[in-house]
Amino acid sequence: MKQPSGFLSFGRNIGIKDQSLDFAVVYSQVLCLSTAVFTKNNYPGAPVLVGKEHIQEGKLQAIVVNSKNSNVATGEEGVWVAKETCKILAENLGIQPKHVLPSSTGVIGVPLPKEKIFAACSTAKEYLKENNLEEFAQAILTTDTQKKISYRTYQDGVIFGVAKGAGMIEPNMATMLCYIFSDLLPETKDLYPFLKNAVDISFNCLSIDSDTSTSDTVALLCNGIKGKIPNSIFQELLNEICIDLTKMIARDGEGATKLIELEIQNARDISQARKIGKSIINSPLVKTAIYGGDPNWGRFVMAVGKVFDEKIPYNDLSIQLGNLEVKNANQEVKEKLANYLKSNQEIQIFVNLNQGNVKMKFWGCDLTEGYVKENAFYTT
Amino acid sequence: MKQPSGFLSFGRNIGIKDQSLDFAVVYSQVLCLSTAVFTKNNYPGAPVLVGKEHIQEGKLQAIVVNSKNSNVATGEEGVWVAKETCKILAENLGIQPKHVLPSSTGVIGVPLPKEKIFAACSTAKEYLKENNLEEFAQAILTTDTQKKISYRTYQDGVIFGVAKGAGMIEPNMATMLCYIFSDLLPETKDLYPFLKNAVDISFNCLSIDSDTSTSDTVALLCNGIKGKIPNSIFQELLNEICIDLTKMIARDGEGATKLIELEIQNARDISQARKIGKSIINSPLVKTAIYGGDPNWGRFVMAVGKVFDEKIPYNDLSIQLGNLEVKNANQEVKEKLANYLKSNQEIQIFVNLNQGNVKMKFWGCDLTEGYVKENAFYTT
Repeated sequence: MKQPSGFLSFGRNIGIKDQSLDFAVVYSQVLCLSTAVFTKNNYPGAPVLVGKEHIQEGKLQAIVVNSKNSNVATGEEGVWVAKETCKILAENLGIQPKHVLPSSTGVIGVPLPKEKIFAACSTAKEYLKENNLEEFAQAILTTDTQKKISYRTYQDGVIFGVAKGAGMIEPNMATMLCYIFSDLLPETKDLYPFLKNAVDISFNCLSIDSDTSTSDTVALLCNGIKGKIPNSIFQELLNEICIDLTKMIARDGEGATKLIELEIQNARDISQARKIGKSIINSPLVKTAIYGGDPNWGRFVMAVGKVFDEKIPYNDLSIQLGNLEVKNANQEVKEKLANYLKSNQEIQIFVNLNQGNVKMKFWGCDLTEGYVKENAFYTT
Repeated sequence: MKQPSGFLSFGRNIGIKDQSLDFAVVYSQVLCLSTAVFTKNNYPGAPVLVGKEHIQEGKLQAIVVNSKNSNVATGEEGVWVAKETCKILAENLGIQPKHVLPSSTGVIGVPLPKEKIFAACSTAKEYLKENNLEEFAQAILTTDTQKKISYRTYQDGVIFGVAKGAGMIEPNMATMLCYIFSDLLPETKDLYPFLKNAVDISFNCLSIDSDTSTSDTVALLCNGIKGKIPNSIFQELLNEICIDLTKMIARDGEGATKLIELEIQNARDISQARKIGKSIINSPLVKTAIYGGDPNWGRFVMAVGKVFDEKIPYNDLSIQLGNLEVKNANQEVKEKLANYLKSNQEIQIFVNLNQGNVKMKFWGCDLTEGYVKENAFYTT
């Protein structure tokens, strides 16, 4: 696994809740050109508020993350703790506080154990190691069952993405965190459009359960140690990494047994594709049919039809699962369909609207008893 | 159970799928002033298409319903069958075909067994009985576990509502059907505004799983045999009946163990109340928390916050479950909250937005393993 040069990191346990890794830092030896996008939830966590402030000049040099506590709905004290975390870490690393991006994920409404976090920040430097991003990837997980890493190389450099997905933290909600580190720099200095483009066709097309976390964060840090990369290649590789991570998050969704990949074809525009794509990928009846291997093709029709303000003539609509056209399926096709659903862990859905020429992909997962159990009985 | 005068009805088995009641007719001895509202799904079933045509003059004299097959996505043949059904029934009853409202609920995309239905229509008259609406209420059910009836009396007359709720039919989707019969007539002849008002504050505030059926129908038939009722009283009783039936449907939602009643208080306007109300009542994380009795109050905050275009300042927001204020709940309140959720089958949520003075109620149910099982393993 080729890791980007100049990024040192660690993950460790500082006892926020249990014995698992719960605190992590990434430090770049060189100030990075950076950008980030954050949750649209109207009640963002304190670290998101501070992160939005710190990213304004487009430069970062460190990331600090804790799991097991989200520092959300913790009031002014919460914001103060997030700022102080950055300040103490910056002091230890010899950098500026505004060049630190903080993240927290976990229980809502419980004050962070600030002494533990401050202490860990003040000794961070001695834990930092090169080529150690796998430990970082492990430390930011909550109930994810697997680390999520995707990278692409270009000449001597690498773009390296790390994410955590839809894990639930006692007693709270899912959070998506993603950090992308690179020792390459694109020709254009403003990184935001690159990240925005990549996020729009990856994470923004992902839904585990339609609930939007208060902590979602995607950050991109480029230190340029390995030189330049053409804009177009950079965008392409960034897109690939974000899509890889999106699929890993969907596959590892709470209780999920199947990854669903949906392609909306020939939409009039992106807005139409997104409305119909989200309606299908979020439909509990579609998700349960895929879980159980039930060839209920009417549910797919229903999920398109319930987007009231996008009327697709029924005869224009085509729906394929794998290579099976499901609309008006007879018994023989239904049996093939049931077999397709039952024997695959990646379900491909193609919905052709025949209204234009826009194509868009969406990712999600099936809805299982496991999802319900994980979220119902996570008692405090 | 006082039933409206002049309405004769029956439910019987005609072997559409199994031995249970699957065919039902209601006939009024007098032509009724009528109105109806239908699903907004862009792919309505054939009976909905025919029903919309038949209701245009505001008069009905009979209802014909079959369960076990929805006659949806059955093309022109499906529409022909629905029309022919009305025609044969009308001939048998000696009324006009356009005065018959047809409904079907059940599997999608399978042709109706038309011979069985036509035969049943041609002998309907001999099965009709007075005071027999309970049999009708039974015959329109699918996987509902209970009949759903609510009525109110006024002087010598009665307004009598019958509904079926969110049952799943092999292999398909939920349908909401509701018929309201009365031997009273309001002063105003246009019944539509009465029904629209009642539906807007009842069924349109209900969500079992956010999936909109292709067959939803609510019809109101008034024969006036027992005289007039003041408009305001009629509206009030109609509202009460629709809300009763809405709650019955929510309580009997697939896999549901708890009825959720949510009141949005002090919204700026109805649109704001509806967006935030629907977001909460549809949130899988809210629904699973209520199922498991988990005092995850952060999930309620998240569900308000994810309505991106309605920003409610955090300090303005108040959330109560029962009589417990849950925002910033400490351990003691959390324990009370867990106890409240675990020991009640009707969960009351009050969300005060403090943005205006509009109040609106919403109904839903918890999300359980039962919902997943019922919808995943309903194999064809």
